[in-house]
Amino acid sequence: MLKPPEHQVAGHRANEGQLGPLIDGTGRFYKPLQSDSRGEHEVAFYSSFSSDPRVPSHVRSFFPGFHGTQLLPASDGSGPRPHLVLDDIFSSIPRPSVIDLKIGACTWPPNSPDNYLMKCLRKDQETTSLVLGFRISGLRVDSASGLYKPGKKDVKNYTAGDVKRVLKKFVSSNPDSSSDPDCAFAAVVYGGSEGVLAQLLELKAWFEDQTLYHFFSVSVLVGYRRDEVGSMRPLVRLVDFSHVVEGDGVIDHNFLGGLCSLIKFISEILIEPDEKFSSGGCLEESKRTPQLGVENGVLEE
Amino acid sequence: MLKPPEHQVAGHRANEGQLGPLIDGTGRFYKPLQSDSRGEHEVAFYSSFSSDPRVPSHVRSFFPGFHGTQLLPASDGSGPRPHLVLDDIFSSIPRPSVIDLKIGACTWPPNSPDNYLMKCLRKDQETTSLVLGFRISGLRVDSASGLYKPGKKDVKNYTAGDVKRVLKKFVSSNPDSSSDPDCAFAAVVYGGSEGVLAQLLELKAWFEDQTLYHFFSVSVLVGYRRDEVGSMRPLVRLVDFSHVVEGDGVIDHNFLGGLCSLIKFISEILIEPDEKFSSGGCLEESKRTPQLGVENGVLEE
Repeated sequence: MLKPPEHQVAGHRANEGQLGPLIDGTGRFYKPLQSDSRGEHEVAFYSSFSSDPRVPSHVRSFFPGFHGTQLLPASDGSGPRPHLVLDDIFSSIPRPSVIDLKIGACTWPPNSPDNYLMKCLRKDQETTSLVLGFRISGLRVDSASGLYKPGKKDVKNYTAGDVKRVLKKFVSSNPDSSSDPDCAFAAVVYGGSEGVLAQLLELKAWFEDQTLYHFFSVSVLVGYRRDEVGSMRPLVRLVDFSHVVEGDGVIDHNFLGGLCSLIKFISEILIEPDEKFSSGGCLEESKRTPQLGVENGVLEE
Repeated sequence: MLKPPEHQVAGHRANEGQLGPLIDGTGRFYKPLQSDSRGEHEVAFYSSFSSDPRVPSHVRSFFPGFHGTQLLPASDGSGPRPHLVLDDIFSSIPRPSVIDLKIGACTWPPNSPDNYLMKCLRKDQETTSLVLGFRISGLRVDSASGLYKPGKKDVKNYTAGDVKRVLKKFVSSNPDSSSDPDCAFAAVVYGGSEGVLAQLLELKAWFEDQTLYHFFSVSVLVGYRRDEVGSMRPLVRLVDFSHVVEGDGVIDHNFLGGLCSLIKFISEILIEPDEKFSSGGCLEESKRTPQLGVENGVLEE
């Protein structure tokens, strides 16, 4: 009865003989708790968040519904294991197009142990996190010509220029073509009063004010169904809360900055979907800032 | 004729026998170029920025006017040295109150050499940069009872709670009192249509859009004169551009995030200037987020 979700685009998948999330086909998503404190931490977040009266209901709708934990057979055959029970956010959308965007230049909370910090920092440097304030962790695009789903390694190696191109492919009818993505669905998926951009701006307004939580290493999932673009509001959801810490009266400037960067990318695709890419990056040569004249201004103080 | 500026609150001061900036008393500020590439880099920034038609004039007014470089006797007696020639932004304000706020959780540009990165990262961790998205680098408050100017060591050790208190002291008539800062000037300095908050929001709007420059380790200087509060627009200026890099089509999410955090602090002071401090931080105990229940959610993946 339980099976791996087809819409999963990042992390370990249960059908590869590994520990991974499962769905029951009737609207519930079961996420196995890691044996270290991460699983416990995510349960603590959901418990705290779901009962916090300070979270407005329009913000709460960006988060999966939480239904406690449940002991279930683990997908890797290691026996019974507690699972988070969440809403399966894509249960009503067969064959969705999904992109997982991990938000924040910095994926490690302050006070992280040094070895964990350095591991995350290297990954933030090697991916686009540090430069863009977010990185793509995975995607699938269901197009008329079939499923476009880049491999983990390709996704990991995305440059800033790749990210802009992939954000276009995600809303194109020709995602696996080597020619320019046509952005056929950009206006209806990203644009409009119920589109992705409008929803991200709603999230942004909350992040400019909320000082309850700092969302390290949290992803924004965006999903839509090709057959229903225009008639169905695209989904925007936050997921993966094992590194959330208390805000202690300070806004989550790391998440907010990354979110604003993503918003700028999406806005630019809406403004100029046909813009060409130069080989070096996502802006035409003529639009680039003149060189500052010094190879590297960073030296010892 | 040349003398150290009384309004300097951070960095090396010329009157301590060190290399430091000088003013001529008629409106010019002379900043000695470091012998490494930092000085050269800052000149390159000012040259590029001051002639860039894409910078709107209302944004340009947040930056000191640039008048090239000039060979002048160095303040440390080491002989002639090139100096940046800038507008002395406080020349018309004798005995100003000034605070230097270094913006950004991360003070090192991407692609920094590892040793520089680690040095900055440690400082960002030890100060409030990483947690708040900005840190106080220095301040002076000219009050009726005299000058309040905390020492470098005290400033370096500010906690998040200290920062909120100091932002209140900066607009109080009793900055050196051990009792609560009275925030006597908060409404006129921070508030109002020409106040600090309004100016920071103007800057924020630009940073949500501009992809020209990334301003690492840049400070926002805020200044006002006690005798003229209400009749004079408080000054908000950006200074110190030796670690600015090109934006390459991406917004400066690091600066923007820190700026939004500062904006939130200033807004809260305007909303509730009399709020008391708990010993642990800047919010009352009852307002704090419930503990997430796990000591430290950060473990190896």
